[in-house]
Amino acid sequence: MKKFINTVEDFCNDSIEGFASAYSDIVTLHRKPKFISRNPPSTKPKVSIISGGGSGHEPLHCGFVGYGMLDAACPGNVFTSPTPDQILAAAEFTHSEMGSLFIVKNYSGDVMNFEMASELFPGKHKTIIVADDIATASTAGEVSRRGMAGTIVVEKIVGAAAEDGRDLDFCYNLAVKVCEQTRSIGVALTSCTVPAMGRPTFSLGKDQMEIGIGIHGEPGVSRRPIEDADVIAHQMVTSLANALDNGTHQRLLVIVNGFGATPEMELTLMYNSCLKALSKYNYTVEKSLIGNFVTSLDMAGCSLTFCVIDDEILQFWDAPVNTARLRWRM
Amino acid sequence: MKKFINTVEDFCNDSIEGFASAYSDIVTLHRKPKFISRNPPSTKPKVSIISGGGSGHEPLHCGFVGYGMLDAACPGNVFTSPTPDQILAAAEFTHSEMGSLFIVKNYSGDVMNFEMASELFPGKHKTIIVADDIATASTAGEVSRRGMAGTIVVEKIVGAAAEDGRDLDFCYNLAVKVCEQTRSIGVALTSCTVPAMGRPTFSLGKDQMEIGIGIHGEPGVSRRPIEDADVIAHQMVTSLANALDNGTHQRLLVIVNGFGATPEMELTLMYNSCLKALSKYNYTVEKSLIGNFVTSLDMAGCSLTFCVIDDEILQFWDAPVNTARLRWRM
Repeated sequence: MKKFINTVEDFCNDSIEGFASAYSDIVTLHRKPKFISRNPPSTKPKVSIISGGGSGHEPLHCGFVGYGMLDAACPGNVFTSPTPDQILAAAEFTHSEMGSLFIVKNYSGDVMNFEMASELFPGKHKTIIVADDIATASTAGEVSRRGMAGTIVVEKIVGAAAEDGRDLDFCYNLAVKVCEQTRSIGVALTSCTVPAMGRPTFSLGKDQMEIGIGIHGEPGVSRRPIEDADVIAHQMVTSLANALDNGTHQRLLVIVNGFGATPEMELTLMYNSCLKALSKYNYTVEKSLIGNFVTSLDMAGCSLTFCVIDDEILQFWDAPVNTARLRWRM
Repeated sequence: MKKFINTVEDFCNDSIEGFASAYSDIVTLHRKPKFISRNPPSTKPKVSIISGGGSGHEPLHCGFVGYGMLDAACPGNVFTSPTPDQILAAAEFTHSEMGSLFIVKNYSGDVMNFEMASELFPGKHKTIIVADDIATASTAGEVSRRGMAGTIVVEKIVGAAAEDGRDLDFCYNLAVKVCEQTRSIGVALTSCTVPAMGRPTFSLGKDQMEIGIGIHGEPGVSRRPIEDADVIAHQMVTSLANALDNGTHQRLLVIVNGFGATPEMELTLMYNSCLKALSKYNYTVEKSLIGNFVTSLDMAGCSLTFCVIDDEILQFWDAPVNTARLRWRM
């Protein structure tokens, strides 16, 4: 197993300790139970935006804690949901009379543990489930869509609304709207290796790729020989455009998200291929984001996310943000 | 070869076209000859800061073009120096009566082509060579040190000074000072694959690592079984502290730089290991930066950079910057 690691048991702890030390001007690490909160906390009452999920997807979610985005994030072990006590502690620590919003990726463990925390938490709150991955929708019905890089769109936009003093209902309704207009699909060139397992989660032939891969290495919808970037991008763009019913909506935020082991040079190349593929659709790309945001340990590959935007969404996307991984207008 | 690519011939072009499209609010792509300049250009006369080098190290250098850092960057083909006509065009496009400073990594091709451009360029200018890699110094004398991630420290600090209106002599002398106080060392867990070659540049056993690796896959100083992150970090920290003669200098900027295929989770873990190793030295870590900044295509591994800082360097490091890859206080 080729990783920078001490022991399997300490992998997540060592990583988050380093993260918290490096960004101590932006975040505070709480250890028992473990969660990350923004530093300094908000000085005014605001809707508290809380997320969390398994580790292995860094910078998600802890890298998005800070002004204008998340108030707290709860990291589980590798590909393992945070426990309800982590979520409860984060909710209690950041709560104000404005209420709290839980942003949860659509995985059964995450949904279940956030539900348990929700039952235990007496404060006013709501939960939004992010389910943007069209790969699973196409095989098993809409309700089974997994959460992918669309999560950071929801976190950024709702985070900005909360920072702007909007109330819980407004933030929740905005989250629902963004979720409805955001879709993603991934492609893997290699598997990832979970430290506790010590070997790749699945095997791909040396010239194979897998379209529709999940961010934990869940199977995709098709496995076939690697094609040119333009061909891959064309397929991904076509799938997303179909899912978003192009024609009525026309303005896009596009994210090319690396899964952890794909260099930036290939991600900007994929973005270029996407722009070529998009030219035959009725879209205008108004915003884009390229980089590693929602990863899958050391998987080579990327996902493509489209969010159909309007002036309201654009305003919150452009609003100031100061987190470890997204930082602008600050 | 597992890459997002169309053809070997178009690899660099496709990638930079995507980069320029994504960051069109920050940079402008010039195509014949090829260079990236900041958008909008500076509205006041200032020392023009120009860098360049082979592609494959993204986001270096184009990702650092923008307010407070580079005025232009010239990308060559993969691991190949930019040509003198690229450098000359960038120099002419960005030049003012304040003069220009060329920041060049210490590789023979880069040094030679920047020298040729320097001879052809009639405007007032100076050149600084960045040579921070202690791995080659320890085997073959100081003059042979290669340029590594220390380059971005020089680019950021001198870029801020130029933005602040300082003159060419000031910028050059500051660059000399930063270069003298900046040292790096790298470790690889895997090779990289140059597209034109189609196979790994070198082979490492499945449990081997290489200490002192260069960013083009040049051989390191020792190849041995992978050790715990704490042990690797301890060796790297010890080497850098010895090179920097700890005792007289005490304040540090620390960079943990990924080589392209190492996920953020492992980079923050390595940062944590470095902090542990640093605890026995007479250093205070005042600033840090973790991420992929100076990469080597799809190599797994990282480099560690120490820059000994003082109030002057700190002031320019903290100054506003607005580039594709570094962005703060803007």
